[in-house]
Amino acid sequence: MNLESVISKIEPLKAEYFELAQKRLDILTKPRGSLGRLEEFARRLVAIYRQEMPALPRKAVFVFSGDHGVAEEGVSAFPQEVTPQMVYNFLSGGAAINVLARHAGADVAVVDVGVNHDFGESAGLIRAKVLKGTGNISRGPAMSRDDALKCIGIGYEIAMDYSNRGFGMFATGEMGIANTTPSTAIAAVITGKSPGETTGKGTGIDDASLRKKIDVIERAINVNKPDKNDPIGVLAAVGGTEIAAIAGLCLGAASAGVPVVVDGFISTAGALIAYCLCPTVKDYMFGAHRSQEPGHMAMLDFIGLSPVLDLQMRLGEGTGAAIAMTILDASLKIYREMATFKDAGVTDSGK
Amino acid sequence: MNLESVISKIEPLKAEYFELAQKRLDILTKPRGSLGRLEEFARRLVAIYRQEMPALPRKAVFVFSGDHGVAEEGVSAFPQEVTPQMVYNFLSGGAAINVLARHAGADVAVVDVGVNHDFGESAGLIRAKVLKGTGNISRGPAMSRDDALKCIGIGYEIAMDYSNRGFGMFATGEMGIANTTPSTAIAAVITGKSPGETTGKGTGIDDASLRKKIDVIERAINVNKPDKNDPIGVLAAVGGTEIAAIAGLCLGAASAGVPVVVDGFISTAGALIAYCLCPTVKDYMFGAHRSQEPGHMAMLDFIGLSPVLDLQMRLGEGTGAAIAMTILDASLKIYREMATFKDAGVTDSGK
Repeated sequence: MNLESVISKIEPLKAEYFELAQKRLDILTKPRGSLGRLEEFARRLVAIYRQEMPALPRKAVFVFSGDHGVAEEGVSAFPQEVTPQMVYNFLSGGAAINVLARHAGADVAVVDVGVNHDFGESAGLIRAKVLKGTGNISRGPAMSRDDALKCIGIGYEIAMDYSNRGFGMFATGEMGIANTTPSTAIAAVITGKSPGETTGKGTGIDDASLRKKIDVIERAINVNKPDKNDPIGVLAAVGGTEIAAIAGLCLGAASAGVPVVVDGFISTAGALIAYCLCPTVKDYMFGAHRSQEPGHMAMLDFIGLSPVLDLQMRLGEGTGAAIAMTILDASLKIYREMATFKDAGVTDSGK
Repeated sequence: MNLESVISKIEPLKAEYFELAQKRLDILTKPRGSLGRLEEFARRLVAIYRQEMPALPRKAVFVFSGDHGVAEEGVSAFPQEVTPQMVYNFLSGGAAINVLARHAGADVAVVDVGVNHDFGESAGLIRAKVLKGTGNISRGPAMSRDDALKCIGIGYEIAMDYSNRGFGMFATGEMGIANTTPSTAIAAVITGKSPGETTGKGTGIDDASLRKKIDVIERAINVNKPDKNDPIGVLAAVGGTEIAAIAGLCLGAASAGVPVVVDGFISTAGALIAYCLCPTVKDYMFGAHRSQEPGHMAMLDFIGLSPVLDLQMRLGEGTGAAIAMTILDASLKIYREMATFKDAGVTDSGK
């Protein structure tokens, strides 16, 4: 992957497809605009697919997994060993994302980009390890610039591969104990908000640990001094392997003309990096849900995404994105399957 | 149906089922509480079904249909003939509710309680006409007290019948040109807010028509002087046949121990009447979505329901409820299908 070449080829959506979709939406048997955001989603999907009547897409959720050196600072409620344990849980189909992906009719692919564990071959696992965990960002960089680019490349290549195999909708997901810490650091650096405003309790730490986590994030920013105008530098300084791969998946989705449903807090940190590299990727992104993490809305607002759902979730894995995909499917079904005023013999008031 | 006897038999949910559900949710492979409202929904469904491990329910959406004399005041963007036209559209499967019910795996039953049109027999149509449209509420009552009770009885009997036939989740829906007008009158009378605060543009009237609509609703209240402590009287004075039937469906669902997903503005007016008759029915209700009508949240707040979705919809028919049913299904699947920490060999932090 050549990043500059990838970015140069990402095309903004065309107004003509929005107009085409609007024309159809306006002859369906309902008052104009009365399906609200379902109509908004349908218009954008038509524009992304560049097709007047897109088929229901094949869907995949990618659970990018990586470990974080900063876990040793005690910023998570769970020990680092849980990252590989949960990868095995994903592979055997028992995690929340497996349940919700089945609910959405989506495949799950687990991607080891940076887990501190050696996995054997396994159906459903993409082995693409760049690092066995990042460095402790409170003491130094997460990884080298080169490794950050490698992780982005992995996400990008997976997007290309799945697009070539006929998948037409992607969801981001992730697993990595302590990964709200680098995500919060990214949120703070890029949006300019303080760690005090953007740091939350992640998977469930107490108030004392929250204060420590804020301190760790402040140190990470002071030690590494990331430049917010250099997104790759931000990733290398205070990011994570799975976060970088999510940025790559977003770039790949936009390159391939595939919508990408961005899950919650950690996924949005990855999406934010992709947006900073190439603002046009936003056209291909849907914000799945509003996470309980306080820094999440700051990032969504920065990108300009309005979340589909607010179910007070804070699990990650892609769980919010899987549910949001069912809503996007519903929007396409409305667009495809509803009768027109003319065909149904219903009087159109024009309103 | 004997209303007092029905009400006396509706039982509040039992704390022990919430505790049972919480115990299971807390051993599943996710941080405690991290699935947010999905966990809330699962707990309540377990309590409604009074079963430790409820099956995925068979689902039905009921589209109660009726006409409104007040349509002659020009309060709707659509002419009254659209009510029967849309009923035919429901029966041939082309309306938004048909698409979204299929998406949710739910049956659609259309119920003629008060349409000003003679329908023949048709698959999917329940013929239970009480009136050929209500009276013009800006000049007198919508219907007699006896007719309001008959309409409630129809909703109640349908709930009982479908429960006996093995359906385990109901959604309310409705069709009736001008029916935001009686619904707004009900909202104003019961919540004590003024028609100026609670009146919206329905299916899409302009500002001049909105002022007229507010005036019509104020006149309806002044002419009929409904007593908010007499819910049947409110229905008879300023209600509608479909709104009364929805109140009956809610009472029937609670009697039968079946959850009822309350759609948007008009459905919530019906649910509000049921709640005023018997506050315990709230235990069995889910508020599907936040409608664009300004009086909707006032009613949901009055009942104490927090909507599942906010997709800026304002169509009715049961469309929001159909989508919300897919989220409730997701919550039950999480509860049923996720692996436990022990079975998956994942370390439980207890948080």
